[in-house]
Amino acid sequence: MKTQVGIIGAGPAGLILAHWLKQHGIHAVILEHRSREYVEGRVRAGLLEQNTVDILRSLGLAERLEREGYTHHGVYLSFDGMRIRVPFGELTGGRNITIYGQQEVIKDLTGAWLEAGQELYFETAATDIQDFATDQPKIYFENEQEGKGVIHCDFVAACDGFHGIGRQVLPKDSYREYTISYPFGWLGILANVAPSTDELIYAYHERGFALHSLRSESVSRLYIQVDEQEDLENWSDDRIWEELAIRLGTDGWQLQSGPIFEKGITPMRSYMIDNMQSGRLFLAGDAAHIVPPTGGKGMNLAIADVKHLVDGLVDFYRNNSLDGLDRYSSTALHRIWRAQDFSNFMTQLFHKQSEHGSFKYRLQKARFDYIRLSENYATTLAENYVGLPFEAFGKL
Amino acid sequence: MKTQVGIIGAGPAGLILAHWLKQHGIHAVILEHRSREYVEGRVRAGLLEQNTVDILRSLGLAERLEREGYTHHGVYLSFDGMRIRVPFGELTGGRNITIYGQQEVIKDLTGAWLEAGQELYFETAATDIQDFATDQPKIYFENEQEGKGVIHCDFVAACDGFHGIGRQVLPKDSYREYTISYPFGWLGILANVAPSTDELIYAYHERGFALHSLRSESVSRLYIQVDEQEDLENWSDDRIWEELAIRLGTDGWQLQSGPIFEKGITPMRSYMIDNMQSGRLFLAGDAAHIVPPTGGKGMNLAIADVKHLVDGLVDFYRNNSLDGLDRYSSTALHRIWRAQDFSNFMTQLFHKQSEHGSFKYRLQKARFDYIRLSENYATTLAENYVGLPFEAFGKL
Repeated sequence: MKTQVGIIGAGPAGLILAHWLKQHGIHAVILEHRSREYVEGRVRAGLLEQNTVDILRSLGLAERLEREGYTHHGVYLSFDGMRIRVPFGELTGGRNITIYGQQEVIKDLTGAWLEAGQELYFETAATDIQDFATDQPKIYFENEQEGKGVIHCDFVAACDGFHGIGRQVLPKDSYREYTISYPFGWLGILANVAPSTDELIYAYHERGFALHSLRSESVSRLYIQVDEQEDLENWSDDRIWEELAIRLGTDGWQLQSGPIFEKGITPMRSYMIDNMQSGRLFLAGDAAHIVPPTGGKGMNLAIADVKHLVDGLVDFYRNNSLDGLDRYSSTALHRIWRAQDFSNFMTQLFHKQSEHGSFKYRLQKARFDYIRLSENYATTLAENYVGLPFEAFGKL
Repeated sequence: MKTQVGIIGAGPAGLILAHWLKQHGIHAVILEHRSREYVEGRVRAGLLEQNTVDILRSLGLAERLEREGYTHHGVYLSFDGMRIRVPFGELTGGRNITIYGQQEVIKDLTGAWLEAGQELYFETAATDIQDFATDQPKIYFENEQEGKGVIHCDFVAACDGFHGIGRQVLPKDSYREYTISYPFGWLGILANVAPSTDELIYAYHERGFALHSLRSESVSRLYIQVDEQEDLENWSDDRIWEELAIRLGTDGWQLQSGPIFEKGITPMRSYMIDNMQSGRLFLAGDAAHIVPPTGGKGMNLAIADVKHLVDGLVDFYRNNSLDGLDRYSSTALHRIWRAQDFSNFMTQLFHKQSEHGSFKYRLQKARFDYIRLSENYATTLAENYVGLPFEAFGKL
């Protein structure tokens, strides 16, 4: 098999990369080791930055998103029971976020790709990537139908997640690795109940962080901070709702509860490598970085990586220049480190990290108060949350 | 002896309080346990926020300050040798800082107070404050001329610094105390050499923080981060200049060295109490809070405390209402916690806190880069540095 860009992973990064390349007349083949059903059913984040929405729109892939997604023009922030709102569009010249499940994005992109008669092989595992130091890299793969095979490519894009082969074959001496664990986790639920809020609520409470997110008119997504080692068995549905009501509570507001149909505990961590490429191999998304979910940046960062990768690939096929691709990591890393810092900021601002009333708590409260009193500070939160424009990083 | 407001301490807080009360026709007496020579010669900070300059001007005490002080319209920030400038006035609607030594402020205020025939007793130690739970508090004092004495007051203002009697007599159960030590100190020098910069330079370097400040056209003030327990003996003048040149260095710039006439190591710490009053006793300035020097906030916070205290006292003498005084601590604490957070932010941004190249370093660098790319973020630094207007805190 032969293609220009071999893509490993049919997540948001791999799929958008494929569509975007196709728009530029560049051929791509996607390999995905899971089944279509699995990938389309996997519950993930659902917060799309302005940049992400703009990209999907420019690719003609935002039709259902525009019909079914929820545009949020702000976010509620709560601290010790006081709730304020940071208006995004107002502070950032009209930039906002859209709530639309990652698996819905996947369904839209997968459907459009296959309908256009393009190649995407599910249940096909990439087992090795070779010769990426040359201009003839190869992806070795395996699946049930064909057994073993190989794809000859000009370039390999590893959009294959944290456990993918992409980072495994990246030369160990080409990057420095950063692994940060936060001393708490998120207990998350999905429930069949109309959201009790029209926009997300982030809350610091002396019992810990809580987040009210939403999925649709009838499905709510909520989280509470728990100990890193917490056992899900300790959390009955009643206890979860009770705790959420306390932590999210504010005067004159009521949390509606309903049947929980999914619950789980997610660890909070940051993972980074400071180089995302080697020769003709390029990593994008979770393959190269994990951010804590507090800033809602995971999927958006993956798609931002893809933008830089497309810029470089288009430059190569149009001008026969590798300059853009050579700059890929350094360009992408500016935004990734910004997102790490913002995710860290949001995590520190709203999580209980030390005794309630401690000096550290007081500084958290001072920062919350600063959002209340300074439009400039509120704007920095807003512009990070909706995603800084790509042009902004041109100043670096 | 009898007065309306008995003031302990002839530092900036005590002196400005006295002048400000006098402007409102309220009588004050100041006690200072040190000599005039000592107080006027004591080298302290020299960075005046816009608010501080405005207050001194409104009291008619800024004549020499306006003649001899240096208005700085911005600050230089350096990171790994890259130097940028944050323009204050441009970002904050014309608010700036003024460089004018604290001891010069002291000289101006002391001179004006004594010339006006007002009472200020040097080398007079306040030994106790009593009956501040009643409306007839008393300050007991001692000096060589008169031996022991007592001042009967309506109110007592303890502007007597970290080691003063004010906090010692404040009921222990009326406040919570916070003591934070940073794991490094500042080695500071004064040198007879023209500053090599027109505005302050804050620098992160892999060898540690450095700061180039200035005093006059011929005197420079410079600092370097050292270990908390560092011995001054290890630092010859040559070594200090060498280290400063490395840490502050940037392309096309040269640090001029000269004879050092003062050097010392200052610990970096934060100290807070969350209540600054009891009955008719009020604490202001260092008596109630210490911030690390990184944000240049110490003297300015003391003077901001005084503003709130004057508001309350004037309200009392004009309207016979204690409401303003009752709110004194809570009002003042908003700004003090903001300053703690800002000082902490500046300290963390520019000090070496962990291995160069570590995740923590990367987040510091991401934050520095964010200043470069976001005018909003640069503005938050500027507005804190020049001091947020008093009205801003009205939103809390």
